Amino acid sequence: MGKTRLEAFSDGVIAIIITIMVLEMKVPHDATPAALAALLPVFLSYVLSFVYVGIYWNNHHHMLHTCTRVTGAVLWANLHLLFWLSLFPFATGWMGENHFAPWPSALYGFVLLAAAVAYYVLQQTIIAAQGEHSLLRQAVGGDWKGRASPLLYALGIGLTLVNPWLSVALYVLVALVWLVPDKRIERVLGHGA
Amino acid sequence: MGKTRLEAFSDGVIAIIITIMVLEMKVPHDATPAALAALLPVFLSYVLSFVYVGIYWNNHHHMLHTCTRVTGAVLWANLHLLFWLSLFPFATGWMGENHFAPWPSALYGFVLLAAAVAYYVLQQTIIAAQGEHSLLRQAVGGDWKGRASPLLYALGIGLTLVNPWLSVALYVLVALVWLVPDKRIERVLGHGA
Amino acid sequence: MGKTRLEAFSDGVIAIIITIMVLEMKVPHDATPAALAALLPVFLSYVLSFVYVGIYWNNHHHMLHTCTRVTGAVLWANLHLLFWLSLFPFATGWMGENHFAPWPSALYGFVLLAAAVAYYVLQQTIIAAQGEHSLLRQAVGGDWKGRASPLLYALGIGLTLVNPWLSVALYVLVALVWLVPDKRIERVLGHGA
Amino acid sequence: MGKTRLEAFSDGVIAIIITIMVLEMKVPHDATPAALAALLPVFLSYVLSFVYVGIYWNNHHHMLHTCTRVTGAVLWANLHLLFWLSLFPFATGWMGENHFAPWPSALYGFVLLAAAVAYYVLQQTIIAAQGEHSLLRQAVGGDWKGRASPLLYALGIGLTLVNPWLSVALYVLVALVWLVPDKRIERVLGHGA
Repeated sequence: MGKTRLEAFSDGVIAIIITIMVLEMKVPHDATPAALAALLPVFLSYVLSFVYVGIYWNNHHHMLHTCTRVTGAVLWANLHLLFWLSLFPFATGWMGENHFAPWPSALYGFVLLAAAVAYYVLQQTIIAAQGEHSLLRQAVGGDWKGRASPLLYALGIGLTLVNPWLSVALYVLVALVWLVPDKRIERVLGHGA
Repeated sequence: MGKTRLEAFSDGVIAIIITIMVLEMKVPHDATPAALAALLPVFLSYVLSFVYVGIYWNNHHHMLHTCTRVTGAVLWANLHLLFWLSLFPFATGWMGENHFAPWPSALYGFVLLAAAVAYYVLQQTIIAAQGEHSLLRQAVGGDWKGRASPLLYALGIGLTLVNPWLSVALYVLVALVWLVPDKRIERVLGHGA
Repeated sequence: MGKTRLEAFSDGVIAIIITIMVLEMKVPHDATPAALAALLPVFLSYVLSFVYVGIYWNNHHHMLHTCTRVTGAVLWANLHLLFWLSLFPFATGWMGENHFAPWPSALYGFVLLAAAVAYYVLQQTIIAAQGEHSLLRQAVGGDWKGRASPLLYALGIGLTLVNPWLSVALYVLVALVWLVPDKRIERVLGHGA
Repeated sequence: MGKTRLEAFSDGVIAIIITIMVLEMKVPHDATPAALAALLPVFLSYVLSFVYVGIYWNNHHHMLHTCTRVTGAVLWANLHLLFWLSLFPFATGWMGENHFAPWPSALYGFVLLAAAVAYYVLQQTIIAAQGEHSLLRQAVGGDWKGRASPLLYALGIGLTLVNPWLSVALYVLVALVWLVPDKRIERVLGHGA
C-alpha cells in the first residue's frame, strides 16, 4: 500500500479542519465596526489555530516525505493524529467565544498537547516501520522542539490557574518557534525542501 | 477509467464526513467545566464514529488496492457505500445529543448495518468485475468479520428494546474487532501493507 | 496545464457538495420516531440530490477521460458547472423543508436545468478545444439523454403549477434514466470503463 | 519536496472555501418567491466571491505550473494566501446579509486587497526560490493587472464612504478584468494551457 492515499486523505482532512474553523466566526447581524470588533478574540484564536494547523501540515508533509513503508500501525497512528487535529475547531471556538477564559484556554492547551503527543507517536511508528536505518530517525536526532513543546503546553495548561493570557502567550511562542521550518529533515535528505 | 479518481473522490468524501461530524459538537456558551461535561455523550459518540469511519477508510483503502478494473457498477456500488457513510454525522449527532436513548441508538445501529451491507455489495461488485481469478476473492476467503458484523449490528438494534447501553457496548466491541487490521489482503498480496 | 488538477479540484468540490447536503438534515432534539419521520421529506430530497450529484460526478469522470487538452475556456466552463452544482444543497434543503411545495420544487428544477445546460456547455467547450477529430464528439453522437433532460426539467418546472409531485416524479424519472451508465464513451474508447 | 502535495492541499482548501460560502445562504422557512427574493443580495455576493475564488484557483494553477522548487518559504507564502482566501465566506456573508452596507463592503474590499497582496508575495517567493532564470519572472513581466488590482481594491474601500455600490461596482469590474485568462504564462511556456 503506497503512501499516496495516506497523504491525500491527510491533506483532505487537514484542509477541511483549517477551513471549517472559520465557520466558528459567525457572521454578525449588525453592519457596524463594533460588531466586527466583538469578534476580535474569535478572530485571533482562529489565526493562532490556522498557524498551528499549518505547522502540522508542513511537518506532516516533511515527515511522510521520509516514509517509505506504510503499515497498518502507521495508518492508525496517522488517524490518531487527525483525531486530535479535528478537535481544533471546537477548542478554538470555545476559547475565542469566551475571550480566553481559564477553562477554555486550558482545553486549548490540552488539545495542543494531545496533538503533539500523537505527532510524536506517529513519528516513532514510522521509524519503527522503517527499521534500523531509518532516515527519519537520523533526521529528528536531537528533536528538542518535539520534546520541549509538550512540556510547554503542559506549563500553559497550568498557567491558566494564574492568568490565561500567560498561557496564550506561551502557545503563541511555541507556534513561533515551530514556524521556523524543520531544517533537519531537509539537511538529511540533502536537498532544498 | 482508472481507479485514481475513484480513490480520490472517496478519500475526499470520507475526509469530509470524518471532519464535519465534529461540527455536531456545538461550542458551548459557558466557559465552565460543567458546560464541557454536558458534551461528554456527544464527544463519546464522535469518538466511536471517528473510529468507524477510520476503519471504513482503512478497509476501503485495502480493498481498492486489489481492484484492477473499475466498471460503472463499481462506481455506483462505491457511491452507495458513501451514501450510508454520509449519514454517520446525523446518526452520531442524534445519538450523542440524546444521551444514547433507545431510538437514536437503534438508528445508529441501522446506519452501521446499512454501511456494512453496502461495503459487502461493493466487495462483491469488485470481485465480479475482476472475474474468476479475483485477488480480492481469495483475500476475503472466510471473511468471518464481514459476515458477523451485520448480525451483531442487527442484534444491537434489537437490544435497544432492552437497554441501549448494551447496544452501544456491542457497537464498540465490533469496532474493536475491526481495529485489528485486515491481514488477509496483506497476506495474499505478499507484502507489508 | 494538465487535467490532473482540474479533476482533483472538481472531485474536491463535488465531494464537498455531496457531503454538506446532509447538514441540511438537522439533528432533531427529540429522541422519538416521530421526530425522525418529520425529517422524511428532507431525507428523500437528500437521496434524490445525492443520486444527481453522483450522476454528475460519474459523467464528469467519463467526459474528462476523453479530454486531452485543458484550455482557459475549459477551466471556466468547468467552474460554471461547479457553480450550479454548488446550489444543490440550498435547493435541496428548501424543497425538503417545505415538503415539496410548488416554488421550492420549481427552483429545484431550475437548478437541475441550469446544471444540465452548464454540463452541455462544458462538453461543447472540450470538443472545441480538442479540434475536429474530437473523441468526445464521436462519443456523444446522438446524445438523446443530454438533449431530452433540459426539456424534461423545464416541463417539471411548469408542472409545479399543476402539482409539484408530478414535477418531483419527473425529476426522479430523469435521474433513473441517467443512472444507466453512459455506454457511448466506453464504446468509443473501446474498453470496459 | 515535490509540489504535488502543495497543489493538492491548496486545491482542497480552495474547493472547501468555494463550497462553504454557499452555506451562508441559509434555507428560508417560507416557500414563497418573496423568501427567495430576500436572499438576492446574499446570492449576488456569493456569485461575486465564487468568481473571485475561481480566479484565484485558476491563477494559482498557472503560477504553480511554473514552480519547479518548493521551499519552506513557498509553503508558508502559500498558507498565507490560503488564510486570506479563507476569510472570503465570512466577508461575503457579512456583505450579503447587510445588503452591501458601507462597513461590510469595506471589509470585503480589505479581504480582496489582503488576498491580492498575499498572492503577490507568493509570486515573489516562488521567483526568489527559482533563481535568476525564473520562468515565472519572465511570465509576469509587466503584470499591470497584479499591480493595478490592489490600488483598485483600496479605491473601492475608500468609496464605501461615498457610496458602497460604487465599491461593489469596482470589485465586479476588477473580477471581469481577471476573468480574461492570463495569457502571459501560457505564452512563455509556449503551449496551450
